[in-house]
Amino acid sequence: MRLSIRQTLPASGDVEANLGLISRAAKAAAREGADLLLLPELVTTGYGAGAEALSRLAEPADGPTVTALAQIAAETGVALIAGFPERDGETIYNSAVFTNGADTPALYRKSHLYGDYEREVFTAAEPATCLVEHAGITLGLLICYDVEFPENTRRLAQAGAELICVPTALPDLPGSYFVARQMIAVRAFENQVFIAYADHAGEEGDFRYPGLSRVAAPDGGTLARAGARPGQISAEIDPTAYAASRAENTYLRDLR
Amino acid sequence: MRLSIRQTLPASGDVEANLGLISRAAKAAAREGADLLLLPELVTTGYGAGAEALSRLAEPADGPTVTALAQIAAETGVALIAGFPERDGETIYNSAVFTNGADTPALYRKSHLYGDYEREVFTAAEPATCLVEHAGITLGLLICYDVEFPENTRRLAQAGAELICVPTALPDLPGSYFVARQMIAVRAFENQVFIAYADHAGEEGDFRYPGLSRVAAPDGGTLARAGARPGQISAEIDPTAYAASRAENTYLRDLR
Repeated sequence: MRLSIRQTLPASGDVEANLGLISRAAKAAAREGADLLLLPELVTTGYGAGAEALSRLAEPADGPTVTALAQIAAETGVALIAGFPERDGETIYNSAVFTNGADTPALYRKSHLYGDYEREVFTAAEPATCLVEHAGITLGLLICYDVEFPENTRRLAQAGAELICVPTALPDLPGSYFVARQMIAVRAFENQVFIAYADHAGEEGDFRYPGLSRVAAPDGGTLARAGARPGQISAEIDPTAYAASRAENTYLRDLR
Repeated sequence: MRLSIRQTLPASGDVEANLGLISRAAKAAAREGADLLLLPELVTTGYGAGAEALSRLAEPADGPTVTALAQIAAETGVALIAGFPERDGETIYNSAVFTNGADTPALYRKSHLYGDYEREVFTAAEPATCLVEHAGITLGLLICYDVEFPENTRRLAQAGAELICVPTALPDLPGSYFVARQMIAVRAFENQVFIAYADHAGEEGDFRYPGLSRVAAPDGGTLARAGARPGQISAEIDPTAYAASRAENTYLRDLR
């Protein structure tokens, strides 16, 4: 399965502009033969749009934004995973959707909110196991801070995930570099799965993102990595290529 | 609290020689002002002594070997953590003991055995929370493969461990380098604790150990590291120096 990641500098609060950006990224991914395009957290609105805009722009999971994402997937033949603010009645979740343009989109809601900014707008969902079959691979979804808790990746791996896709919006803090460069690879290794991590890059209002999007392999290696600027990276997701690593590192079997 | 780690090439199957090595290491630690000396897995017998010797040399936790370790601690004023094969009736555990030379030693039994070699000799203990107060720090104990499971470090951190001490005997496999260099730092960071990891180095019979003993700090930094040869390293364990890291990375508080 060919995976593409678009590391974005979103247009803050401008859904139409961001859908245009996503459409262009999906076309670029299609030209590379990608089966899946992974986009960052809250990419449809920008992560840093502010509490008022995130609340105002939040939409149901069957609303116009997700419908537009499904249309992009249908037109390009590239499935999408994208973060968006989701409204469910009076409750707003920090969510991500998987759409292949044909089936009902799969929805994941962030369970571990980060910091006061997110907690002002969003409700934390109960930790959940969202799995999708796509292009021969079992995908699991988490969002940003969720992946920093080994309990969340373990739950998905034990449920059968081979690739865990993580839209994120890393703040530019010292610990964030450690998370991207060290922790993501360890999450992959300790579960013998792939982890794809898609961040924003650059400045959006008061927010600054370090980029560092990447794809980690089951053996702890890094298959693709982005730098500090917007851009697109891709990697082949082939679990059969890591049989030796799984045979040497039998964590899921040995856990007591 | 000053921590010393002795990275050893043990004398295979020769307890007396290894007690001599431990005594010399404790004296060296005392000269540095260390409060605690951490030694590798099965250091009293050698990890690679073979199934017959490990079974024959296994002793109760109040046997002559632990008594000798307590005497070394009492003479040098340096507490010891050392791995040894423990006999409890017909059952043999891969254990580690903490002794300060005065109080009853604390005992930890490995819960996650690694590979057929260990499983032939040892019985896996139920995962347990072994904590010790020493020199103003709350220590937790794990052995080797145990630390590769985030569930074990999390359990100790949630119980209050500030420093997790890990006697180990890493095999010289590709994944072992990843474990030592990447995973140990992540285990420290994701729990905001210190991790001390003490390995053998060199060849013992059919076994080859890569060394790579180290001390990881709560912010993911490495305070001390050994190379591929036997030697002694030390580090200051000061939780108060990492208040900023704990304030930024509130995993234990935020876990749901």
